[in-house]
Amino acid sequence: MSDRAELHQKNLEKIFNPQSVAIIGANQNKGTVPFDILSGILSGDFNGVIYPVSPGRTHISVLKAYKYVVDIEDPVDLGVIVFPSTVTHMALEQCGQKGIKSVVIISAGFREVGGNGIEREKQIVEIAHKYDISFIGPNCLGMINTDPKVRINASFARQMPAAGSIGFLSQSGALCTAVLDYAQAKGIGFSKFVSFGNKADISEVDLMYYLMRDEKTKVVLLYLEEVSDGPALMKAAKDIIELTSKPILIIKSGRTEEGASAAASHTGSLAGRDEICDAAFQQAGIIRCDHIEDMFNIATAFAYEPIPLSNRVAIITNAGGPGVLTTDTAIKEGLQLACFSKETTKVLKKALPNTANINNPVDVIGDATADRYETAMDAVFRDENVDGVFVILTPQSMTDIDTIAHKVVEVTQKYDKPVYTSFMGETDVASGIRILQQNQIPHYSLPESMSKAFAVTHQFGKLLQKAPAQKIEGIAIDQLKAKEIIQQAMEDGKTFLQEYEATELIKAYGLPVTKGILISSEKEAGQVARKVGFPVVMKVQSLDILHKVDVGGVQLNILTEEDAQLAYHSIISSVQERQPEARIQGVFITRQIPKGEEVILGLKRDPSFGPVIMFGLGGIFVEIFRDISFRVAPLAREEAFEMIKQVKAYKILAGARGRHPKDVEAIVDTILKLSQLAVDHPEITELDINPLIVLQEGKGCFAADVKILLREG
Amino acid sequence: MSDRAELHQKNLEKIFNPQSVAIIGANQNKGTVPFDILSGILSGDFNGVIYPVSPGRTHISVLKAYKYVVDIEDPVDLGVIVFPSTVTHMALEQCGQKGIKSVVIISAGFREVGGNGIEREKQIVEIAHKYDISFIGPNCLGMINTDPKVRINASFARQMPAAGSIGFLSQSGALCTAVLDYAQAKGIGFSKFVSFGNKADISEVDLMYYLMRDEKTKVVLLYLEEVSDGPALMKAAKDIIELTSKPILIIKSGRTEEGASAAASHTGSLAGRDEICDAAFQQAGIIRCDHIEDMFNIATAFAYEPIPLSNRVAIITNAGGPGVLTTDTAIKEGLQLACFSKETTKVLKKALPNTANINNPVDVIGDATADRYETAMDAVFRDENVDGVFVILTPQSMTDIDTIAHKVVEVTQKYDKPVYTSFMGETDVASGIRILQQNQIPHYSLPESMSKAFAVTHQFGKLLQKAPAQKIEGIAIDQLKAKEIIQQAMEDGKTFLQEYEATELIKAYGLPVTKGILISSEKEAGQVARKVGFPVVMKVQSLDILHKVDVGGVQLNILTEEDAQLAYHSIISSVQERQPEARIQGVFITRQIPKGEEVILGLKRDPSFGPVIMFGLGGIFVEIFRDISFRVAPLAREEAFEMIKQVKAYKILAGARGRHPKDVEAIVDTILKLSQLAVDHPEITELDINPLIVLQEGKGCFAADVKILLREG
Repeated sequence: MSDRAELHQKNLEKIFNPQSVAIIGANQNKGTVPFDILSGILSGDFNGVIYPVSPGRTHISVLKAYKYVVDIEDPVDLGVIVFPSTVTHMALEQCGQKGIKSVVIISAGFREVGGNGIEREKQIVEIAHKYDISFIGPNCLGMINTDPKVRINASFARQMPAAGSIGFLSQSGALCTAVLDYAQAKGIGFSKFVSFGNKADISEVDLMYYLMRDEKTKVVLLYLEEVSDGPALMKAAKDIIELTSKPILIIKSGRTEEGASAAASHTGSLAGRDEICDAAFQQAGIIRCDHIEDMFNIATAFAYEPIPLSNRVAIITNAGGPGVLTTDTAIKEGLQLACFSKETTKVLKKALPNTANINNPVDVIGDATADRYETAMDAVFRDENVDGVFVILTPQSMTDIDTIAHKVVEVTQKYDKPVYTSFMGETDVASGIRILQQNQIPHYSLPESMSKAFAVTHQFGKLLQKAPAQKIEGIAIDQLKAKEIIQQAMEDGKTFLQEYEATELIKAYGLPVTKGILISSEKEAGQVARKVGFPVVMKVQSLDILHKVDVGGVQLNILTEEDAQLAYHSIISSVQERQPEARIQGVFITRQIPKGEEVILGLKRDPSFGPVIMFGLGGIFVEIFRDISFRVAPLAREEAFEMIKQVKAYKILAGARGRHPKDVEAIVDTILKLSQLAVDHPEITELDINPLIVLQEGKGCFAADVKILLREG
Repeated sequence: MSDRAELHQKNLEKIFNPQSVAIIGANQNKGTVPFDILSGILSGDFNGVIYPVSPGRTHISVLKAYKYVVDIEDPVDLGVIVFPSTVTHMALEQCGQKGIKSVVIISAGFREVGGNGIEREKQIVEIAHKYDISFIGPNCLGMINTDPKVRINASFARQMPAAGSIGFLSQSGALCTAVLDYAQAKGIGFSKFVSFGNKADISEVDLMYYLMRDEKTKVVLLYLEEVSDGPALMKAAKDIIELTSKPILIIKSGRTEEGASAAASHTGSLAGRDEICDAAFQQAGIIRCDHIEDMFNIATAFAYEPIPLSNRVAIITNAGGPGVLTTDTAIKEGLQLACFSKETTKVLKKALPNTANINNPVDVIGDATADRYETAMDAVFRDENVDGVFVILTPQSMTDIDTIAHKVVEVTQKYDKPVYTSFMGETDVASGIRILQQNQIPHYSLPESMSKAFAVTHQFGKLLQKAPAQKIEGIAIDQLKAKEIIQQAMEDGKTFLQEYEATELIKAYGLPVTKGILISSEKEAGQVARKVGFPVVMKVQSLDILHKVDVGGVQLNILTEEDAQLAYHSIISSVQERQPEARIQGVFITRQIPKGEEVILGLKRDPSFGPVIMFGLGGIFVEIFRDISFRVAPLAREEAFEMIKQVKAYKILAGARGRHPKDVEAIVDTILKLSQLAVDHPEITELDINPLIVLQEGKGCFAADVKILLREG
C-alpha cells in the first residue's frame, strides 16, 4: 500500500467517526446545499460538536458561527466544505493550517465542468498533499455513518437511513437520493453511505479497504461510472474476499458504447470495453449487478441470510401457477429442485390435504392458513436434501397473510439455512411484506430475482471455499533476450515485428514455436530446411508486405532440400514480380506443424485494466459467434483453464463428436507464459497468435503465426 | 369456425352482459366460495337482477331464494354454479331445462383431481352439448366485466378492479388474485377479467375471439399453463392482429422441463417443448412475457400510449447516472438514441444551464424544477428525429416531483408520440408516480422495463405494417405417389423408411434429390451408374443396418462402370462378412452431390402445435451451439426465409469470410415443400434431411440423406 493510501485509511477513521465537525460555508438559506448539509447533521442527531464556518455571520440557528476555520478554538476532526468551487482551495488551505486531516468536499465545479474546473481540482489535490489531508469529493453528496456511537449525515440526502450492515459507495450523487428513498421503502439499512464524486483524492478503492476493516459492514456495494485503476480495484476485491469473506457488488454503468459515451460526456471518463470489465470482475470475485433493484435484491440476501451450502431449493406455495413460474426461474439460474427425503414426504402427506402437491414445489393449496405453511416449512427445512427455502404466497380469501409472515420469521430462526420469500400482489400483501422486511427476511416481488439472488449467493459460497489462486512460478524465461528484441525494434523505429522476430520473442518466454531460421540466399535453403526438419514451410519476411500469400510469398509442405531451394527461388521471384518495391528481409523457414485444432490467443491493453488475454477457437467461432473469453493478466493456472472452458466451442477441444481430446494443458501453459510476457513487457501493446495449432492430448500445441505490435517510441 | 365455437361467441355475450344472474348454490356462510361470489356481485353494484338458488332457504340476505333454477319465474341470462362438484351436473341439467345457455362453473373437483373428477367433467360437457349451453370453467375463479352498463364481478376476487382497456384471461385462478392486487396498486384497469380454469367447454381461444370483438378491450392478456390446441391459438392471434391490430401478450409457464413437470402435476396437462412454443408465438405475432410485472409493463405501454413510428428515443433526466444506465438498456434492446435537430439543440442550449448536457440523454441537472423539464420535453417531442421520450427523475432536494409529473401529463397530451417515465426511488416519488398512473402515463421502476416495453411496442408496430404472409401456391406435388409409398410401408408394418423409399417420397413433393436407382445385382451396377451419371455414390439398403459406413456399406466417388461393378461386389461381400444376418434390399446408386455447405432440415410433431420444421447448419452448429430455428407448418415463403436468417450461422450461407453466397432461395423452396409434405401426411412423425447440401447461389441444393419415421399402425 502506498504512503498516501495508508494515510487515507488513517484519515478515513475521522471522516466516518468525527467527534467534531466544521461545516465550512454554512448558511441559513433554505433550498441551498449548505443549508441542507447543516440540517442533515442536525436532524441526524450527531453525537458530537458542530462548528459552522460562515464569514459575515455570528451564529447559524442556535450555533455560534466562525469567520474562518482557523478561528475555531477547539480541535476539529472533520471539515465539510460547501463553499463555491472558486474559494474551496482557500477553505482547504485553512483546514491544513488548522490541522484538520479529514475533509469532505461537497462543492461542485471541478473536473466535471472542464476548463478552469480541471485546474481548480489540481490545486486542491496539491493542497491536500502539502498538509497530509485526505478528502472525499469534490462534486459529491457527502457521507453518512449510521453507527449509533456517531450518527452523522454529512450529506444533502433528505433523510438519515436506518442502521444496517450494507456499505454503499457511489460515484453518482444523484443516484444516492434514489437509492436512499428505495432503501427506506424496503426497510433496508446501511452501515456507511458515501457519495465520492470526482474521487480526486480518496478513491473507491480506498473506501473499499475502509469498509473491509469496518465491523459494521457485511456487504460492500459500489456504483461506478468509470474504473480508473482496474488492477487496484481487482486487488482490493480479492483482498476483501480473501481476508473477510465480504461480498462486493458493483453496478458499472456504460455497458454499451452509447452508454459509455453518455458517461464520458457527463463525468469526463473513458470507459473500457465492457466485456473486459465483465471478465475482470468475475476474475476478482466481484458480483456485477445490472441495476439498483438487482443490487439490493442480492445485497439483502447476503445481509440477512446465511450462504446456502449447495443449490437445492424447496419451494412452498399456495398457488400452482406461481410455483411453476418460480421453478422455471430456478432451473434457468442453475438451481435444483430438492428431492425430499421419505421422512419429509411422509410428514407432508400426513399434514396436507389430499389435493395438495407434496412434491417439490409443495402446493399447500389456496385455502391454506398459517398452520399449513408452518408444517410445510418445518418439514422441508429439516430435510438434509434442502439447502434453502422459497416461500410464495398469493392473497386468497382465506389467506391470513400477516400470521403467515410471522410464522416465516419464527420457523426460519430455528434453522441455519436461507429462506427467501415472495408475497405476490401489492396492497393486500403490503403489511405481510413489511413484517418480513422488519425481521430481515429477504422479500422479492419477482421469482426471477429470488432465484437469481439464491444462485449468486451460492456461487459466492463456492468461491469462498476455493483455495486462492496459486501464483505461477518456475516458468523458464529469458527476459533479457525478449527485452533485447523489443529494444532493438524500438530503436529501429519499428512498431510491428516481423514474424521471425516475433517468433523469437515469444520463444524467449517458452511459448511453443517450431524451429525456424531466417535465410537470405538460395544456397542456404536446402541445408537450413534439413536442419529445421522436413516437412517445412517457407515464408517471405518483409515489412512492406501485408498479405504474404497474395504475392506468392508462402510455400507449404516442402519435403526435400532440392524443393526448398526451388521454393526459395520461386518465392523471391514471385514477390519481386508482383511487388517490386518491397524490401525483403529474407525467407523464414519453419518446420511444418501437423494438423490440429486451431485456436486464437491474443493480448490487448485495456485503458482501465491493463494487459488482457483473449482466447477463442479459430475462424467462424471468433468471427461469427464471438465465442471468446477474456482474463486480465497475470493469471493463475486455474484461471487460464477456466477461460478455455468458458467458450462454448470448448466441447470441440474436449473431444465432442468422437474426436480425440486436444491438449488443453498445453494451451493453459501457453496462456500462462503469454500472461507473464504481457506483464513483463508493457511495450507490447498487441499480440496475436493466430492460429495456435493444438494437437491431441499430450502432443502439445504450436504457434503457427505471431503478430506483435509495440507502442511507439 | 365450428358450430360449437360459433355458439360460444353467441353465449359469451350473455356471460359478460347478463341482465339477470342465478347464483346456483348460494349460501350465507362467510369464508365460503358461494358466499364470496354472491357478495362479489352485490358489492360490485351489478346492473341487473340476482336470483340466489339455495335449496332449503327462503331468502339470502334480502334476496328471495329459490329451491331450484327451474323455479325462477323470470327468464335468466347467466347461471353461476357454486355447488360442490358432485351435484354440479344436476344444476347444469336444470339450467338446460330452464333455457339458460350461458354458464360459469366455479366449482372445483373435476379433471384436476383425477379419478371420478374426470368422469364428472365429461358428464357436464355432455349436458352442455345436449342443451347448447356454453360454460366457463369448471375449477375457476369466475369472471368480471367492468363495463358501467353491466358491472358484474361473478368471481371470488376480493375486489372489483377499475375499468380499463386490458382484457385478462387466466388458466390459474390463484394467480388472478395476485394480478388484481398488483393492478389495483398500479391503478391499472381492466375491460374483462376471466379465470377459465379447466376450460372443459369454452377455451382460451373462444375467449380471445370474444375479446377481439369486444370494443372495450384494446390489449389481450393471457396466462397459460397448457396449450391444448396450438394451431387454433396461433390462428386466433393472427386473426386478432390482422383484423383489429390488438396486441396479444401471453405468459406461458413451464419454460423448463422441471417447470413443465410441475405444471403437469398440478393441472394434468402436458407441456410441449418450450423452444417450439417460442417459435410458434413469434410466428403468430404473440408477445411472450416472462412474468406478471413484465406483462403489465408492456400492456400499459400498449394501453396508454401510441405505438412508436420508429425506434429513436430521447431521454430526459435530472441525474447523469440513471441517464447512462437507461442508455445502456435502450441500446441493448435495439433502440437508438435520437440525434437532435439543430433547432432542438438550439432551444435546449438556450433554456438549460451551462453545466447541463444538451445532447441525448439530456441532463437537466439535479436542481431542475418543473419548468426546465417542460422546456426540454417540449423541445424533444417537437423534433422529427424523436419517436418517443423517456422522462427520468431522481428526487433531489430541489425537485418539485408532483409538479413535474403534472407537466409530463400536460406536455405529452399535445403530441402523438409515446412517453414513458421512471421516477426513481419509492416513498418520496410515490405521489408523483400516482399522478402519472392516474393519467395513464406508463411508469417503470427499472430502465430495463422501460426500454423493453418501447422495443416491444415498436416491433409490434413493424409487424402491423407488414403485409400478411402470402399463402403458398403452385408447388408441383404428386400427393398420390407419396400416399402410396406411405401406405405401402405401413401395410408392410414398417415405421422406418429405407433411404431409397424416403428419397422417392420427398421427390414426389419436389424436394431436391439427385437421381437414384435401387439395384439388386452386380450386373446392373455399371449400366445404372452410367444412367444416373458419374460420379456416383453407392449405399447398401437394409433395415437391419443402422450405420452403413461401419459395415463397409458405402462407396463414394465412383467414376466408371467397371468401378461401379467392383463397388457393388465389395459392398455386398463386406456387409455379408461383417453383419451376416442383415437382410439386404439392394444397393442404392445416386449421383454424387458436389461439395457445398451442409445444412439440416427436420420435421417433428409437437403435441401442442403439430408439425414443426427445424433448420440449422450441419455438425457443430447444431450439436454444440444449438444454433437452430423452428417454425410451425404450414409456413409462408417469408417465414421460411426468416427461419433461415434467424440462426447465427446464417452469415456463413450469406457469404461470410470471403466465401461465395449460398443458394438460400433453394433452401426456402425446400422448406416450403417440406412444410406441405408435413401438412398433407400426418403419418410422418419425424423426418430428417441431414445433410442438405447447399451449393452456390443459383446452383440449388440437394438432400444427401433422408430419414423418415412413420407413426405405428
